Amino acid sequence: MSATTDRALSALDKNLDASLKRLFELVSISSISTDPAYAKDCRRAAEWLVKDLESIGFTASVRETKGHPMVVAHHPGPDERAPHVLFYGHYDVQPVDPLDLWENDPFKPAVREADGRRIITGRGSADDKGQLMTFVEACRAYKEVNGSLPCEITILFEGEEESGSPSLKPFLEANAGELKADFALVCDTGMWDVETPAICTGLRGLVGEEITVKAASRDLHSGLYGGAAANPIHILAKVLADMHDETGRVTIPGFYDGVDETPPDILKMWQGLSGRPESFLKDIGLSIPAGEKGRSVLELTWARPTAEVNGISGGYAGKGFKTVIAAEASAKVSFRLVHRQDPKKIREAFRAFVRERIPADCTVEFHEHGSSPAIQLSYDSPLLNTAKAALDEEWPKKAVMIAMGGSIPIVGDFQSFLGMESLLVGFGLPDDRVHSPNEKYELSSFHKGQRSWARILAALAEARAAGRLPG
Amino acid sequence: MSATTDRALSALDKNLDASLKRLFELVSISSISTDPAYAKDCRRAAEWLVKDLESIGFTASVRETKGHPMVVAHHPGPDERAPHVLFYGHYDVQPVDPLDLWENDPFKPAVREADGRRIITGRGSADDKGQLMTFVEACRAYKEVNGSLPCEITILFEGEEESGSPSLKPFLEANAGELKADFALVCDTGMWDVETPAICTGLRGLVGEEITVKAASRDLHSGLYGGAAANPIHILAKVLADMHDETGRVTIPGFYDGVDETPPDILKMWQGLSGRPESFLKDIGLSIPAGEKGRSVLELTWARPTAEVNGISGGYAGKGFKTVIAAEASAKVSFRLVHRQDPKKIREAFRAFVRERIPADCTVEFHEHGSSPAIQLSYDSPLLNTAKAALDEEWPKKAVMIAMGGSIPIVGDFQSFLGMESLLVGFGLPDDRVHSPNEKYELSSFHKGQRSWARILAALAEARAAGRLPG
Repeated sequence: MSATTDRALSALDKNLDASLKRLFELVSISSISTDPAYAKDCRRAAEWLVKDLESIGFTASVRETKGHPMVVAHHPGPDERAPHVLFYGHYDVQPVDPLDLWENDPFKPAVREADGRRIITGRGSADDKGQLMTFVEACRAYKEVNGSLPCEITILFEGEEESGSPSLKPFLEANAGELKADFALVCDTGMWDVETPAICTGLRGLVGEEITVKAASRDLHSGLYGGAAANPIHILAKVLADMHDETGRVTIPGFYDGVDETPPDILKMWQGLSGRPESFLKDIGLSIPAGEKGRSVLELTWARPTAEVNGISGGYAGKGFKTVIAAEASAKVSFRLVHRQDPKKIREAFRAFVRERIPADCTVEFHEHGSSPAIQLSYDSPLLNTAKAALDEEWPKKAVMIAMGGSIPIVGDFQSFLGMESLLVGFGLPDDRVHSPNEKYELSSFHKGQRSWARILAALAEARAAGRLPG
Repeated sequence: MSATTDRALSALDKNLDASLKRLFELVSISSISTDPAYAKDCRRAAEWLVKDLESIGFTASVRETKGHPMVVAHHPGPDERAPHVLFYGHYDVQPVDPLDLWENDPFKPAVREADGRRIITGRGSADDKGQLMTFVEACRAYKEVNGSLPCEITILFEGEEESGSPSLKPFLEANAGELKADFALVCDTGMWDVETPAICTGLRGLVGEEITVKAASRDLHSGLYGGAAANPIHILAKVLADMHDETGRVTIPGFYDGVDETPPDILKMWQGLSGRPESFLKDIGLSIPAGEKGRSVLELTWARPTAEVNGISGGYAGKGFKTVIAAEASAKVSFRLVHRQDPKKIREAFRAFVRERIPADCTVEFHEHGSSPAIQLSYDSPLLNTAKAALDEEWPKKAVMIAMGGSIPIVGDFQSFLGMESLLVGFGLPDDRVHSPNEKYELSSFHKGQRSWARILAALAEARAAGRLPG
């Protein structure tokens, strides 16, 4: 390890408390992107990041979109030969309801002890504020002790990742020249376990869709009309129940077009990963894999597509009882895509599937909630191998290559709009409860995550200097 | 018609404005029984009724129950030979949500013009405050001009009819001696059309049930867990979709035990009723009967049982999108019963049906929301024939015998606890939007309803005096 890297790592150790204070400031901003009521908070988070990046020496600005703003920042490298990386993260967070299930205020972050481990609590502590700040802190420390950064760095922070990234593609297209780098670093994924870092090479895509079934022109008394008037909840329930067959397979025609069977050697590698498959369901109070029969939990969540209902509503759901037949009923449905599934075709196939099941005197309305194709990255590239070696140095166990069930739309866009390979390294853990009450981020993830980025940036610069990393 | 009746009818005509003012006072009290937040308003409505009945000369009181109070009032007859009637109504109303669909404040009643007809607007204007006040006003006018009432009258007003009447049976049992009369008059039903009064001889029963399916111990990220973790909305949708087969028949085993086929002559009589069957669905924006195939709309709503989902909720239903797999999902389900269907057996059969469809690692909880058996009254009795003749005199068209899709639990209880025959006469109309936004009551229903009760009370006394009405 070089002296410059060593100094940066020491500075990160020394500055941990100060870095936590900064993270707390960011987490305390309730930047919930999906709810328009929090638009101002989203902007505040963007402004906070600009100010913080400027304090490190970045040229940073809040950049307007039709939705929540982007943050773009630039810092030159030490010389023209240094690699140019684009780092991506998102400052927006998920809603916090049901609020009463939180043990601590989601927007008053703190470090707490839990089962002998130290954790950072709060909405966004992991997804993605804690993660993106690991990179920012690595830059800060490196710059502080060495006066420069090892690479030329462009930063892009998005504010709509949790609501389908509607502004992302237009922004990339409009700013392609400014954002193009040698490759992209994305910090929004997880580790295998608390000691084992991971590089993610597969990501499921996403299609979000909201459907509203409308029947009678008004809510009806179920006594007067029950048995003769169409009930939109029944129609919706039938549609949703029809989406899966007895084997857990999705029944929408053409749904599996472009889905590959996972190669046997990859399945074998996943079978060799110890610990999580057994506890994966147990940790959440379940025991029976619910999806396609005959496939492992890792395969189901990493390499198979899904159709999931994320929300449903209709009729009277308050206290007590109301004998009403609702005028309409709604569901939010998302599809996780793998391999070459086409988001547009999936959405169209779903809509046709639904329309076929709507009685002639009823109607259905569709509302689109974003989409992204799945990503399959290389298992073996100079970028990946360089980063893997740097992670191997930092953590107790060697880095593993994994896939991920969630979507990170940006990765496909980086490939298609900017022609860049992405490296997906993140320090989340399976029990971080992202998108749920009591989200947390491991303190060790935050600290060793910072150290990992310092090592990776230095290693990329060294690899470039040694001719091992093409530009 | 006797001079006493004539005087009462004239007084009702003269007092219409004053009677409207009183009704408005009662409708303006938001006595929503199903929501505990309105408990005080329910009590206020009961107290208002006691005061009003006392002003007529009734001995009236608010009577405590475990839930909302009852109102009981007594007024002696003119002599010992006069018939003794028990009049029943309910002062509680349905919730008003969605409030934004109301054209006028639901608790600020008014008389308005609509399509050339004069209507009274407000929650409870029809169901059941407007209806019960037709009887109270008839008593007031008769007493005012004649100094006495034609019958001995006991009044029972309930405050939990819209929430399953949990206190009713215990109250009837505990007060059977006080409440027993020769027969019961119930004003909670409708007319055939605006010119044609109706006597209801069949009422569907009701079983209300809430189910909550629980899967994972917390809400999950659909990317991390989707495809492997059980989704309670899927399980619930499957259960609800399974409840009906392709022909619209309910599939719960034993559900049709005790259901009779309607006699051909009755079906023929219903086929002869003009006007409503054609417009029944059209009025609510529909055109295709949704229930069991091959049966008329009248048969479906009057003489066939149903299983209807009245409300469903689970996951994220707010604005935007949240890629969550919910920990639980709930539905409120009601069953309309006919003939000899046993509410207890229906509830048990439904629960077994649901439990069979819950995966072994998930759970389901049931919450009971009241029940009542169906009622089938005689098509031909001295009570019914006396009332029918009185209605024939008041209205432009002759009274018809109909059935009703809704439940009025009290009727069965009057039969089983007090051994009383009930007469079901009401002045609601199919377009009154009871249980929906913009509930209204026809001004002609309110006025001629008052006159109808004055005629019926007088006719019952005359029939008793002439030996045509046994006690």
